[in-house]
Amino acid sequence: MLTFAAVMQFELTAEYLDMLRLAIEEHNDDFLADQLQEQYAADVAEIFNQLEFEEAQYLYKLLPEETTADVLLELNDELREELLASLSTKEIAEQLDQMDSDDAADVISELPEDIQEEVLSQIEDIEQASDIADLLNYEEGTAGSLMAKELVSVYAHETVNACIEEIRRQTDNVDVMYTVYVVDEKERLIGLLSLKKLVVSHPITRIEEIYDSEIISVKTSTATSEVAAIMRKYDLVVLPVVDGLGRLMGRITIDDVVDVIREEAEKDMQRMSGISDDVDSTDSIWRLSRSRIPWLLVGMCGGIIGSRIIGSYESQIKIHPEMAFFIPLIGATGGNVGVQSSAIIVQGLANNSMKGERLVPKLMKELAVGLVNGVICSSLIFGYNALISDSFNLAIIVSIALITVIMFASFLGTFVPLTLHRFKINPALATGPFVTTLNDILGITIYFLIGRMLYSV
Amino acid sequence: MLTFAAVMQFELTAEYLDMLRLAIEEHNDDFLADQLQEQYAADVAEIFNQLEFEEAQYLYKLLPEETTADVLLELNDELREELLASLSTKEIAEQLDQMDSDDAADVISELPEDIQEEVLSQIEDIEQASDIADLLNYEEGTAGSLMAKELVSVYAHETVNACIEEIRRQTDNVDVMYTVYVVDEKERLIGLLSLKKLVVSHPITRIEEIYDSEIISVKTSTATSEVAAIMRKYDLVVLPVVDGLGRLMGRITIDDVVDVIREEAEKDMQRMSGISDDVDSTDSIWRLSRSRIPWLLVGMCGGIIGSRIIGSYESQIKIHPEMAFFIPLIGATGGNVGVQSSAIIVQGLANNSMKGERLVPKLMKELAVGLVNGVICSSLIFGYNALISDSFNLAIIVSIALITVIMFASFLGTFVPLTLHRFKINPALATGPFVTTLNDILGITIYFLIGRMLYSV
Repeated sequence: MLTFAAVMQFELTAEYLDMLRLAIEEHNDDFLADQLQEQYAADVAEIFNQLEFEEAQYLYKLLPEETTADVLLELNDELREELLASLSTKEIAEQLDQMDSDDAADVISELPEDIQEEVLSQIEDIEQASDIADLLNYEEGTAGSLMAKELVSVYAHETVNACIEEIRRQTDNVDVMYTVYVVDEKERLIGLLSLKKLVVSHPITRIEEIYDSEIISVKTSTATSEVAAIMRKYDLVVLPVVDGLGRLMGRITIDDVVDVIREEAEKDMQRMSGISDDVDSTDSIWRLSRSRIPWLLVGMCGGIIGSRIIGSYESQIKIHPEMAFFIPLIGATGGNVGVQSSAIIVQGLANNSMKGERLVPKLMKELAVGLVNGVICSSLIFGYNALISDSFNLAIIVSIALITVIMFASFLGTFVPLTLHRFKINPALATGPFVTTLNDILGITIYFLIGRMLYSV
Repeated sequence: MLTFAAVMQFELTAEYLDMLRLAIEEHNDDFLADQLQEQYAADVAEIFNQLEFEEAQYLYKLLPEETTADVLLELNDELREELLASLSTKEIAEQLDQMDSDDAADVISELPEDIQEEVLSQIEDIEQASDIADLLNYEEGTAGSLMAKELVSVYAHETVNACIEEIRRQTDNVDVMYTVYVVDEKERLIGLLSLKKLVVSHPITRIEEIYDSEIISVKTSTATSEVAAIMRKYDLVVLPVVDGLGRLMGRITIDDVVDVIREEAEKDMQRMSGISDDVDSTDSIWRLSRSRIPWLLVGMCGGIIGSRIIGSYESQIKIHPEMAFFIPLIGATGGNVGVQSSAIIVQGLANNSMKGERLVPKLMKELAVGLVNGVICSSLIFGYNALISDSFNLAIIVSIALITVIMFASFLGTFVPLTLHRFKINPALATGPFVTTLNDILGITIYFLIGRMLYSV
């Protein structure tokens, strides 16, 4: 048994990696094989991901046969691609044969198209090959692309005994059995049978007497984000997938959906941070640069607009250069408030906690929050300026501008993501840098407008 | 069967809510009971969450008895608290009796302490009451607080047949059985038995011959975030929890962990957006204001420092007021780059994809990305200024300042979260507004320093 402590004893350190690298250099195969033997596939993959390709390739050949497929699955995309490219189609086919159909389909879809067919034709288990070929037909981002074909199903008219026989036969292909699906004579899904019930029921009972007809299913065309929402909402561990005629096509397990949930949260975070592509820190410099430049340019355009606005007050700045001092304060506070407001909305939209709410009360509430914080911030900055600055006018201008900017930023930070959502644009996409830039420009405009009004009084 | 289409036909609309509200007003109980009967608990809770308390309370009394506990669990915290406060301790005890022990413990821990004991003493099922009391002892944020006591375990020396008998007995208390745990005579966890194996094995086989001793477990004291990481990494659906002596205490299922994962992602997002508490859009205005003011004040302090820096260049601004025009551009770009860099790092730290990487290569890579984007942005703004502005000096100052700011922001955006992480402070906490503010100040300083140097040339 591996308790948590034992699992945690495997903590990937730079020192451990150095030790492995040295052993690879010295071709100390016995030591390396021992090290690999002891680890879970996920841990081995973690090691591989940190090594140079040649080192990972060297270790890959030392892996015990039964874990190679699992390790392949856990690698990051780039490394897996490189490793697969170094294998023959026959070797790839052997790996795919050991995987669940959904994982195998994911891997094969990453291969160049001309190789895909060759690999498929070399998979020994004909059923597995046809399952994989079938899964390749579903569009990415749909339930069909997420499901696996491995499942256990029985006919409603069978007895418990016959059903157990049938399960015995079917489970040769199924690693973990979550539940038994019940279908009618036309293969249409009509319910499920808990294993518990199967184990505790009398052998000659008919399935139709004991199965549960309350079952939630999705269609092959359902979007993965909706699959995730349904599984989370109804606390499901496994979800059956049916075709247009209601026939059972496959099942989706929660572990695949956990990845979808995590990835969606990460993507939202990236979009809010102004990163346009799905990148991570191991990507190339060029790819990382490209993913960031669009929103930087948007921000720059905002900055240029800002410079033109300030430019139109050039004569005023000459007379009152102290106006320039608080440009960053006004801009930054507007940006911060906008991001805070929009983050709450984006989050509420993402976890569905805002269903059925109306726009106007939402905006009123946000404005109330803005008013509270605006009064606090304005009072503080007024106190500061009254004490420090010798221009009483400036103190009043900054405070009035600040509270106005905070109110506007609260409004825009709420309104923009809700409006984008209404037009079916992901609100996270344009929320971060977009709202910041907008509030920057707006803040400066308000500040100088109020400045001109009050100085000319 | 409910297919996805059927589930989705329940889409909570403002119109549907209005219809329910009207029916409540008219005391149209038959209609309301029908509506509630048809829905899943999660859907009913979604409706309740959008109603006034009195309306929800009215509907609650019309719920079919077997779903009240499930609906209670799915409500948002405030509403559940209010509803429970309106029930007698006896009524609460009845609800708890129907829940899984972990859910019951969560609910009871939300009650005022003086009521907790009274409720516990009124739970009819003594075993359930003692399980709940036991679970209340574990600290929040640990595996113990997340686990449920309901599980099925068998002794290693028993036969398959005796084991099935035992399961029949134990499953009275267990709703869904994921797996059968195998313990030794001292109740220490030594492995697991897949249901599949149990179903397909010969009745007189001994468990010790067929069980799987490779099992991952956690201790009751393990942090929930680590529980989530372990379940995600090893693709587990259920994870056993043991005490200090290795005795089986309970199990954690993936649906509870999905919530942990989601909540952590949300918290990170909030922290990056400068919101200090765990709030959502349904919280009170005061609570929402309070959660946001700390980082606004940090931003304001940054703004004040910025004003003093600009203030020290007052005479320069009088001569060259055009220097003021590009303050927002410099500040905003620095902020944007900093947020982009830190988001990548925070994400890499959160999903463990950066284990074993070293600091210096990481920083060098980030600086390279900064250089690429800095050159692009600087060239563009130089082109713009060369065309539009009549001050060639200004064009050069802005471009040099911009590339310098982008490089510094890339550096800080990488360095700050990594350093916080090293000192065991959550990097997301100080990443968003902190990095933005820092880069704002730094940007202005660099800009005016370069300005003074070049204008005096």
